[in-house]
Amino acid sequence: METILNPEYELWQGLCCRASFDDTLIAQRVAGILERVQKGGDGALREITREIDGTAPADFKVSGEEIEAACRKVSQELKSAIAQAAANIRKFHEAQRTLDVEVETMPGIVCRRRQMPISRVGLYIPGGSAPLFSTLLMLAIPAGIAGCREIVLCTPCSPQGEVSPAILYAASVCGVSDIYKLGGAQAIAAMAYGTESVPKVHKIFGPGNRYVTKAKQMVSATGTAIDMPAGPSEVMVLADNTANPVFVAADFLSQAEHGPDSQAILVCDNRQFAERTFAEINRQLALLPRENIASKALEHSRIIVFEEGRQKQIEFANSYAAEHLIVSLADPWEAASQITAAGSVFIGNYSPESAGDYASGTNHTLPTMGLATAFSGIGLDSFMHSITYQELTPRGLESIGTTIVTMAEAEGLEAHAAAVKCRLAQ
Amino acid sequence: METILNPEYELWQGLCCRASFDDTLIAQRVAGILERVQKGGDGALREITREIDGTAPADFKVSGEEIEAACRKVSQELKSAIAQAAANIRKFHEAQRTLDVEVETMPGIVCRRRQMPISRVGLYIPGGSAPLFSTLLMLAIPAGIAGCREIVLCTPCSPQGEVSPAILYAASVCGVSDIYKLGGAQAIAAMAYGTESVPKVHKIFGPGNRYVTKAKQMVSATGTAIDMPAGPSEVMVLADNTANPVFVAADFLSQAEHGPDSQAILVCDNRQFAERTFAEINRQLALLPRENIASKALEHSRIIVFEEGRQKQIEFANSYAAEHLIVSLADPWEAASQITAAGSVFIGNYSPESAGDYASGTNHTLPTMGLATAFSGIGLDSFMHSITYQELTPRGLESIGTTIVTMAEAEGLEAHAAAVKCRLAQ
Repeated sequence: METILNPEYELWQGLCCRASFDDTLIAQRVAGILERVQKGGDGALREITREIDGTAPADFKVSGEEIEAACRKVSQELKSAIAQAAANIRKFHEAQRTLDVEVETMPGIVCRRRQMPISRVGLYIPGGSAPLFSTLLMLAIPAGIAGCREIVLCTPCSPQGEVSPAILYAASVCGVSDIYKLGGAQAIAAMAYGTESVPKVHKIFGPGNRYVTKAKQMVSATGTAIDMPAGPSEVMVLADNTANPVFVAADFLSQAEHGPDSQAILVCDNRQFAERTFAEINRQLALLPRENIASKALEHSRIIVFEEGRQKQIEFANSYAAEHLIVSLADPWEAASQITAAGSVFIGNYSPESAGDYASGTNHTLPTMGLATAFSGIGLDSFMHSITYQELTPRGLESIGTTIVTMAEAEGLEAHAAAVKCRLAQ
Repeated sequence: METILNPEYELWQGLCCRASFDDTLIAQRVAGILERVQKGGDGALREITREIDGTAPADFKVSGEEIEAACRKVSQELKSAIAQAAANIRKFHEAQRTLDVEVETMPGIVCRRRQMPISRVGLYIPGGSAPLFSTLLMLAIPAGIAGCREIVLCTPCSPQGEVSPAILYAASVCGVSDIYKLGGAQAIAAMAYGTESVPKVHKIFGPGNRYVTKAKQMVSATGTAIDMPAGPSEVMVLADNTANPVFVAADFLSQAEHGPDSQAILVCDNRQFAERTFAEINRQLALLPRENIASKALEHSRIIVFEEGRQKQIEFANSYAAEHLIVSLADPWEAASQITAAGSVFIGNYSPESAGDYASGTNHTLPTMGLATAFSGIGLDSFMHSITYQELTPRGLESIGTTIVTMAEAEGLEAHAAAVKCRLAQ
């Protein structure tokens, strides 16, 4: 982990760079999988799953009995935790409902915009080393509030055909019962194209490995919407002497343990703080079960010191556009109000990233790789789309007729003008 | 143009299908252009423009004098029309502002979501046969309302180095002065990567030919946001005997004149109406300057009759998910309220598509190819992104600490738990 002192502007672009990978090989493999599933349906799903995992479940669909059995396996403690997290997520996402917009732009011309649920959505939740039931809450709860008619869930199972009980329990809490034991690019293909057993959906959400990410990107080019392009997770901490190096180090490591390609960046305003935090990171690292993963992530993590202070820190944060931005500065809201690009912002010393990851109520599916300059994290609106409407009375059309005809003719589109003229001639 | 009587459900998928093209060759060429611009900047832009157009402008940037001169060339009539259209578009998009969301999910845990402008946006406006200054209004007005700091416009020029005066005038009305004489995939590349003269933007908007569309799709895979995937324009008209075949035919043709790959679909409830409209389409077609284009579009346009009536018409409309949906039915709002997938809906007999194309106030940049199942047309929100915030007091963190620790441990993420524990231990 490098410490960089007062980097000049010319260096910022490099310091804001995320790791990039050549995924040509992955793209080729995924293209093959997509094509096989599109043509071969369930048969192809079964074949591909066998090729990759050595085995495939007898039935992709998770039965009601399996869900019930899984729910019995989850501890009361975890059930209570999930209930509290779900309640907070629900509250924050319910507050994101918007009213229809209706404007009479001119007498006799009424325009409306109305949000409505996307009818069929698909959620992908990875299994493997960390069963991300928290991500399921983050996706299925707003999908339910939005009123999506069908919510399909794909998640891989163990070689014994079992899905993580916590995932099935979280699904049942969110009212999701259409669950399939399917992982990888083939799961994305199944939801994008539909098979005999898996319904085709209009939009696919959720994280995954590079195959899953590539598959989402590829199906998005052919008509299935996706939540957002995904990259490795990342955190930036803005700190001054009002911050606590112990907390900052812990936040650093909670990011680093996500995966070897995670990135954590500390941007502070003095060397002493940088040194104390560096030491503290090393001390805490040794105590972690996932030390191995975290230390790999730390290799491309950084401490950046701007001795000029706060304004440079904020500017740099806006250049980096972090997925998670922790603001441990004096008067943190004043600084946060100048942030124009970030996924989610954690204010002050008692708002660790893990609060937002699990339970404060904000969504943890957030734009990575600097995409927070233009993308938003998942919200209620991610599960909705808008339709506009206009109604013109004969009088309304008359009042705007000349405008339409003039513009249409100037664009060389006579039939557009004629559609108005024939009505006004009546 | 085919007329289909009472098609069974099994046929619907085929009837809702859009034309698809093999764009392998286009993708290869565009990939080459993107790479050259990314590496070669302005020099590459100049070279590519010369290769394609035979000539390249001396300076890409449109000067203040050029803008002023163009404005003098636009007729007073067109200026008035643009002013009225702009006023309506502004009114409807200003009404789309949303308030920040703020919720105290639990005592001591405050969550916020705030929309803010995307700092730098790029607009592409095709030149050529139809200078689409109306599209510029549809993009630049909401970008201005959103508060985007930089609005970059690329539009091709004539071999004499001139940009359509109407486009430059519309730009000046919208306050856009950062204008570049650049067309095609190379314009998209310039805005995605930035060159010596063209600023890099965070999100690119606007229509274009297949090269432009492919370039947008390709840069969107590498970190530049785009408005939406684009396909040929399309209209569906739902009609019963309260509709007027003359109007319906005119709407049909106003869609058909867009391009040979446009599609128009009439869905009515009786054969007589279908026949009368068919005859009327042929009568009006002969009168059009763009008859040639329109008749090509009509080859893959269709009239579909559901003698069972209204409910089937609505169901079919939801399957097709039209970019533009004209509802010329008795009690049109009742029918429109059942539409779950469409870009923009035109209510009743006096709301032609051309009203929304130019001047009613709704946006005309809309999802095509059935994407209206999950995508929305352009709105104020297209030029904004959201950041969430959370602030926990020590008390707030304490009340939710067990929940976070329990969930983190159940996901095997000990460092996430530690970030909470170290704070609670203070």
